[in-house]
Amino acid sequence: MRQNKYDDQSFYEAYSQMPRSLEGLEGAGEWHTLKELVPNLKGKHLLDLGCGFGWHSRYFNEQGAEHVIGIDLSANMIQQARQMTSAKEIEYVQGAIEDISFKPDAFDFIFSSLALHYVEDYKGFISNVKNLLVSGGELLFSVEHPVFTARAEQDWFYDANGQIQHWPLDHYQEESIRSTTFLTENVVKYHRTLSTYLNELLFAGFVIERVEEPKPDPKLMEQNPAYKDELRRPMFLIIKARLAN
Amino acid sequence: MRQNKYDDQSFYEAYSQMPRSLEGLEGAGEWHTLKELVPNLKGKHLLDLGCGFGWHSRYFNEQGAEHVIGIDLSANMIQQARQMTSAKEIEYVQGAIEDISFKPDAFDFIFSSLALHYVEDYKGFISNVKNLLVSGGELLFSVEHPVFTARAEQDWFYDANGQIQHWPLDHYQEESIRSTTFLTENVVKYHRTLSTYLNELLFAGFVIERVEEPKPDPKLMEQNPAYKDELRRPMFLIIKARLAN
Repeated sequence: MRQNKYDDQSFYEAYSQMPRSLEGLEGAGEWHTLKELVPNLKGKHLLDLGCGFGWHSRYFNEQGAEHVIGIDLSANMIQQARQMTSAKEIEYVQGAIEDISFKPDAFDFIFSSLALHYVEDYKGFISNVKNLLVSGGELLFSVEHPVFTARAEQDWFYDANGQIQHWPLDHYQEESIRSTTFLTENVVKYHRTLSTYLNELLFAGFVIERVEEPKPDPKLMEQNPAYKDELRRPMFLIIKARLAN
Repeated sequence: MRQNKYDDQSFYEAYSQMPRSLEGLEGAGEWHTLKELVPNLKGKHLLDLGCGFGWHSRYFNEQGAEHVIGIDLSANMIQQARQMTSAKEIEYVQGAIEDISFKPDAFDFIFSSLALHYVEDYKGFISNVKNLLVSGGELLFSVEHPVFTARAEQDWFYDANGQIQHWPLDHYQEESIRSTTFLTENVVKYHRTLSTYLNELLFAGFVIERVEEPKPDPKLMEQNPAYKDELRRPMFLIIKARLAN
């Protein structure tokens, strides 16, 4: 199922008001960790899957990438992303991550930020990526952490006074669809275990280079103490892998 | 801190009554997954860290290992392990995992079952293992899953009727000591994140070969429906890694 919530007007408007939409990468709690894992991009060909407003695509362009293709299912997102750049090296294409089709070995680096938990067929996705990457090419992605996606409720457990008690974990081993609420709307996600995220890469011939469960940026925790709750459970998972030579 | 609970008589007696103590490997819910990751051991030199009653050491011996050294801090455990075998290829030594000292490149395969969450200095441990393994040698270990060790309470969250509601997760990013209760006694464990378990291996030059969060053995779930609760959160983490050539 390919759900295009970002073209629902109310959802799109709510998403557009999130810090990561308004402030870009610096407004995203995990960017300080993700940024360190971006390889040298000089002269490289890149694919940015689920590019949204194009914040990452533009950053990669600034880092010297020769060509960046940003893909997003949402016409709203792609339109906005196009308006935010005049760089000739960036190309935005509307489409689903599941349907990407390029020549084999077309990319040196494939990136995806917080989009793969919307993709049902992760194994098929990895197989596509393997085909599209040059030998030695790298894949870097973030997803919502399996601890976060396990329960459809995706919320803290509160006491009678509305105070957070802990993060409730359940159904961890049930890898399947989750109908959740995000912003204004019902959103369909796919829960997978952390071991599945890693082992499908290993089975396909990737070498794991790094696994991160980022803590919030200390700067953001200082500005907004609510970020400290993010230390109580991992919200994001970041994986960097290289296609073996 | 090196806590030797297994030489406290009441703790030792309680541990001795657990299914994994009485029935050995087949009584351990994670063994069916761990077993698949054991490499070909014919003619190999092995180290079994935290060997307990020696169930794994004996299994490895049966698989054709040339020499197995089992290490355990507990005199009780080592004594019992010695009584359970007459194999000349197995040697049991009383000692702490932190203090192991052998010639470099002494082992082809280093194994540890549910012991490393008792070791404070994981980075130091990995450094030792790297020194002791031949190039291309493998490390296979299980630990209590970081989702399980995060809260000192290490228990489910129950409703007013005593029914399990979910697994409470908290303090995940706080990597430090946990004073918990296991069987009859206070037990000291060290909580680390899953990313730390993996990245310290990567930083030391290991290649990750497999990461498993095992579900309970279907046979055990059939015998005892309580095992089905184990699907609600991961209890064990298994990592297999190879020292790069």
